Amino acid sequence: MTFGTVAILGPGLIGGSLALALAERGLADRLMIYARSPRVLDEIRAAGVQAELTGNPSEAVRDADVVILCVPIEAMPGLVHEIRDALKPSALVTDVGSVKGSVVRDLEPLLDDRALWIGSHPMAGSEQTGFAAAHAELFEGAPVIITPTEHTQPEAARRAEQFWRALGARITLLSPDAHDGCVAQISHLPHLIAAALVQRVPETSIELAGGGFRDTTRVASGPPELWTEILSANARAVAHHLDLLIRDLQAVKTALEEPVKAESKSVLLATLKAAHDARSKLPKKRPKRP
Amino acid sequence: MTFGTVAILGPGLIGGSLALALAERGLADRLMIYARSPRVLDEIRAAGVQAELTGNPSEAVRDADVVILCVPIEAMPGLVHEIRDALKPSALVTDVGSVKGSVVRDLEPLLDDRALWIGSHPMAGSEQTGFAAAHAELFEGAPVIITPTEHTQPEAARRAEQFWRALGARITLLSPDAHDGCVAQISHLPHLIAAALVQRVPETSIELAGGGFRDTTRVASGPPELWTEILSANARAVAHHLDLLIRDLQAVKTALEEPVKAESKSVLLATLKAAHDARSKLPKKRPKRP
Repeated sequence: MTFGTVAILGPGLIGGSLALALAERGLADRLMIYARSPRVLDEIRAAGVQAELTGNPSEAVRDADVVILCVPIEAMPGLVHEIRDALKPSALVTDVGSVKGSVVRDLEPLLDDRALWIGSHPMAGSEQTGFAAAHAELFEGAPVIITPTEHTQPEAARRAEQFWRALGARITLLSPDAHDGCVAQISHLPHLIAAALVQRVPETSIELAGGGFRDTTRVASGPPELWTEILSANARAVAHHLDLLIRDLQAVKTALEEPVKAESKSVLLATLKAAHDARSKLPKKRPKRP
Repeated sequence: MTFGTVAILGPGLIGGSLALALAERGLADRLMIYARSPRVLDEIRAAGVQAELTGNPSEAVRDADVVILCVPIEAMPGLVHEIRDALKPSALVTDVGSVKGSVVRDLEPLLDDRALWIGSHPMAGSEQTGFAAAHAELFEGAPVIITPTEHTQPEAARRAEQFWRALGARITLLSPDAHDGCVAQISHLPHLIAAALVQRVPETSIELAGGGFRDTTRVASGPPELWTEILSANARAVAHHLDLLIRDLQAVKTALEEPVKAESKSVLLATLKAAHDARSKLPKKRPKRP
């Protein structure tokens, strides 16, 4: 099975890994890659990826059966304006943005009747960025959330699911809003908190930090500009969950102010136990890049 | 060079790793291990550790030149009451507790004139516990904070430093209070926050979590009872830094409530940038257990 001609717009960590994974698994008859920057196109050419490279997004999508938007969220509406007249009406168009409410609201009206559109979010990646960090196994065993709306054509959902599954991903369907609430809790808020934690620590203490601190704050090494966009795009859900977290932390702080009281110890113990138990529900770790 | 007879009281993750490291490096002429539980003593016997095992702490310390207290913080004063009459006055006594202010305040008067006492905190370990998780390389390259006070005999500091250095550790000297503030920031608060984050996430979302969430919350799998004791013992410093963090988070929340404002984006970007830069100061990762 192949997906015909596949166009990847924006070959960064996710788009680049998609290109490598499609090539390795022989899932595309033709692979088109668009990047705005000639330097990035040179980098991909030098890596020997079997693909047609172009700096013109309309050219990339003209014959495409599947189009994957892998540019930053805020660049998506502009890019879709550029390509919409060149799309085949039968083309499946999806994206890999980390926020879905705003992306779907922006793109759905632009793509209605122009192509089969549905949002996707592969929950893969790392604090690294760019094509240099891309690898063919990124999606193996990774969760991918697909976000149908009332306007989504069933064929779009079916084909998107088939596409990600062929790359080894585990599929979950959520509405764009449910998706945004979920990733606020498991990705955006943890990122924000890791950053808030680490930025307070003086350099003399950082030098003493061990593996726990390193892991707890790893995501805070992600690109600040990209994450500012992600947090802004999902601001409502992140603010909501942040508010709940602040309330929890205030209760803990009150407990810490009277640490000898039995009641205080039970507040601490209850939080730590609930966390310990919840964490035991985490799916098994995926194997690292070989 | 050897340290003569070394007594390890409490062979859990840290104490057990100490025993394995001392044996592997040939740093003790005699190794005494005390554990309260016969089951733990059997486990160590079965592992073939070259040591004399006992369920009597006074017997363990009687001939010891170095005594390392590796029991939970709250068990330390009771244990020291038991052993103080059996100690050689020339013995170096130190501990591995994660909090130093309360430990030093509790133990210093008990050990004054009985032995050479100083507090230590090896910043090694993991969310795992018990002798089964112990390994001989735990201290290689790990920071160890030694906490002299105005009552500390210079010889105690010198010998403790020599001891930990022989196990491959990097030494830092801090007062007990400075230590507690430092670990509140790099260990206790991150632990508390990881727990607060993870305990709020519903199981359906946990299943979608990726590597970032796994790392950010890894420490929250640590034993809840042990961490309740640690947080209670360092409550003042943790509450202080938690208060500062809550203020930062409230500012971020205000920014998220008006995400389109340029000012809001700069609050987010400033936090993320400061975190990104601070994290680049982390020491190089130590090699994992082979």
